[in-house]
Amino acid sequence: MKKSRLEAFSDGVIAIIITIMVLELKVPSVVTSLHGDTWSAIWAMWPILLSYVLSFVNAGIYWNNHHHMFYLVENITGGALWANLLLLFWLSLMPFATAWMGENNFSQAPVTAYGIILLMCAISYTILSYVLVSHCGKNSALAEAMGKDWKGKASLGIYAAGIAMAFYKPGFALAMYAIVAIMWFIPDRRIERRVRHSHHPTN
Amino acid sequence: MKKSRLEAFSDGVIAIIITIMVLELKVPSVVTSLHGDTWSAIWAMWPILLSYVLSFVNAGIYWNNHHHMFYLVENITGGALWANLLLLFWLSLMPFATAWMGENNFSQAPVTAYGIILLMCAISYTILSYVLVSHCGKNSALAEAMGKDWKGKASLGIYAAGIAMAFYKPGFALAMYAIVAIMWFIPDRRIERRVRHSHHPTN
Amino acid sequence: MKKSRLEAFSDGVIAIIITIMVLELKVPSVVTSLHGDTWSAIWAMWPILLSYVLSFVNAGIYWNNHHHMFYLVENITGGALWANLLLLFWLSLMPFATAWMGENNFSQAPVTAYGIILLMCAISYTILSYVLVSHCGKNSALAEAMGKDWKGKASLGIYAAGIAMAFYKPGFALAMYAIVAIMWFIPDRRIERRVRHSHHPTN
Amino acid sequence: MKKSRLEAFSDGVIAIIITIMVLELKVPSVVTSLHGDTWSAIWAMWPILLSYVLSFVNAGIYWNNHHHMFYLVENITGGALWANLLLLFWLSLMPFATAWMGENNFSQAPVTAYGIILLMCAISYTILSYVLVSHCGKNSALAEAMGKDWKGKASLGIYAAGIAMAFYKPGFALAMYAIVAIMWFIPDRRIERRVRHSHHPTN
Repeated sequence: MKKSRLEAFSDGVIAIIITIMVLELKVPSVVTSLHGDTWSAIWAMWPILLSYVLSFVNAGIYWNNHHHMFYLVENITGGALWANLLLLFWLSLMPFATAWMGENNFSQAPVTAYGIILLMCAISYTILSYVLVSHCGKNSALAEAMGKDWKGKASLGIYAAGIAMAFYKPGFALAMYAIVAIMWFIPDRRIERRVRHSHHPTN
Repeated sequence: MKKSRLEAFSDGVIAIIITIMVLELKVPSVVTSLHGDTWSAIWAMWPILLSYVLSFVNAGIYWNNHHHMFYLVENITGGALWANLLLLFWLSLMPFATAWMGENNFSQAPVTAYGIILLMCAISYTILSYVLVSHCGKNSALAEAMGKDWKGKASLGIYAAGIAMAFYKPGFALAMYAIVAIMWFIPDRRIERRVRHSHHPTN
Repeated sequence: MKKSRLEAFSDGVIAIIITIMVLELKVPSVVTSLHGDTWSAIWAMWPILLSYVLSFVNAGIYWNNHHHMFYLVENITGGALWANLLLLFWLSLMPFATAWMGENNFSQAPVTAYGIILLMCAISYTILSYVLVSHCGKNSALAEAMGKDWKGKASLGIYAAGIAMAFYKPGFALAMYAIVAIMWFIPDRRIERRVRHSHHPTN
Repeated sequence: MKKSRLEAFSDGVIAIIITIMVLELKVPSVVTSLHGDTWSAIWAMWPILLSYVLSFVNAGIYWNNHHHMFYLVENITGGALWANLLLLFWLSLMPFATAWMGENNFSQAPVTAYGIILLMCAISYTILSYVLVSHCGKNSALAEAMGKDWKGKASLGIYAAGIAMAFYKPGFALAMYAIVAIMWFIPDRRIERRVRHSHHPTN
């Protein structure tokens, strides 16, 4: 089967996930609070805003990586459809975890739950990549580009460490989640360059 | 007419349906409840979360089947547009039924209503498939792939039985709704293989 | 310019409009009401549900007609982009008007407001069709298919009559809005057949 | 890489942003207010409705310009993906700023915040255009069409002036934000004509 509708559907779901998180940013108002129209009402929302930024970046990274990965895939199987839906399921819980964490000032349980959702997303993404690589073959451009996927494996480890740490110091856990985001944010261009040099299936 | 915009529009609507259900997951918060940031606040949400999972899987199955069915169709008629909108209408009520069921701990009327929505979705999907088959012809790849559609007919029967059962034992009804989901989840690959062997119209 | 992104963007906006209306269907719950999980709680919502059905059908008709109209267009101008955005603006207010009407039991002002929104949508659609026809030329397939557009003009008249009537009998106004919907729903196939016989630009 | 998925994803996000703002238009109802179904209940919402119109127009302009700009681009780099996500991030905060401004009757801090979000969107758009021009080259159709980008630079200046003015006269600030919108709304066709005459990469 062709990949176009899977891409379009995933784009739609991720676009909605990334955008509905903003609906959880409840607007302070003079109707409900005496100082609803002051800057301090916004400063008081900093955990909510920080959670939003972190989740926006994470969702952006998933879209970006999804875009890169499927760029190297031509046809998909039924298994890939389901693996993709599993990823979308865990991503769809990100707005909930984000809001729970933000509205409770980064307390222990919400920060742990947020990490678990991030970990489940990462595991689902890994499963999806394995399904695609096993379909495309070991010598495919995708298999080459994925390589040993040390970054994916490291992410799983750091998330697991962050979740364990959240029981003691939620702030440290948050820092670890952020490290994974930064790790994916920065050196992605190396892969891109390799991809550009490898022969592309649709060229 | 070409099918591309119908596919794109359906992808959009299903992507939104699958995602806005997460907005019904109201975030427990220390502002509104003493223990809003504890795990017990999440455990207390289990009927809401379970309803969400069931509806996510159902919406995913509809998208998946929609994707497979239209893959074998080349052109569509005005009738197919309306049959598709009927399906989208009933699917669009799924978030409402999901939330009603989840927020009322699977009590009798909401579980019945949820089953009725599922049944209406299944009937609409059956109508859509008949409209498409009658347009493509009895010897088309679509007609072959649909076959006698025993799975579609069995789903209608199980949903009807579940609805009847919901008046006595809502838990049994839920189990029957879940059986239909599992039934569609598992052996879809058989159809896919048959589809692959049949000659595809766009090849 | 090509029409594809305008189509995709319009599909997205209409898909979201058609779906977020379901978010206005507030779920009755045993937490907030003694009988939140009974059928009577749903029956009490009949004005909200009826408004939802009417708006869903209207949005579906707009999508359908938009789909037909742009099917006959190849390139678009900047004017068409803005005329299309005007249509989307008025369509985007439909969820608000729907909810206002539904939650106030079809009282006078909300029914009038709903009619005004429908009228503005119809006027915007007419403007959009004029912009497209003037760009494609009088002998284009689009100009032929539009013809004298008596249905469009009749819709404007019936909406205006409905709005005037809403001041006295909101129920009659609603019936007139429904007549327009039925009018577009039924004999659309005639146009389609004519379209099929005319030579299509992309064939 | 091809631009198609970036366009589709951006279309999706902007379509959702433009549409979810309508969810912030809270429906007045006889359940919560004595006169919830009267025209005066709607007139009382004028700051919310005016904010909605201003933001709808702004989001429409961004979509329109995004559409024009990417029309002249063929391939994109990883840098463009991130610059685009930065733009979408600031656009995604527009519904929040819109609601904050509308629900607090255009008081000082919310009007300032709205201007800051508009300025950040404009800066992000400028960055995105620089990334694309530097990739396409100085002699590309895009570079020609952008020219010296005086309109972009003037927008940044007027937004900055508006933000400064919001501390004293929020109404004046709003007028300046509106001037930028009008400026982009009106003479866009000149660019289009120039674009039409230049040779297009995909022709």
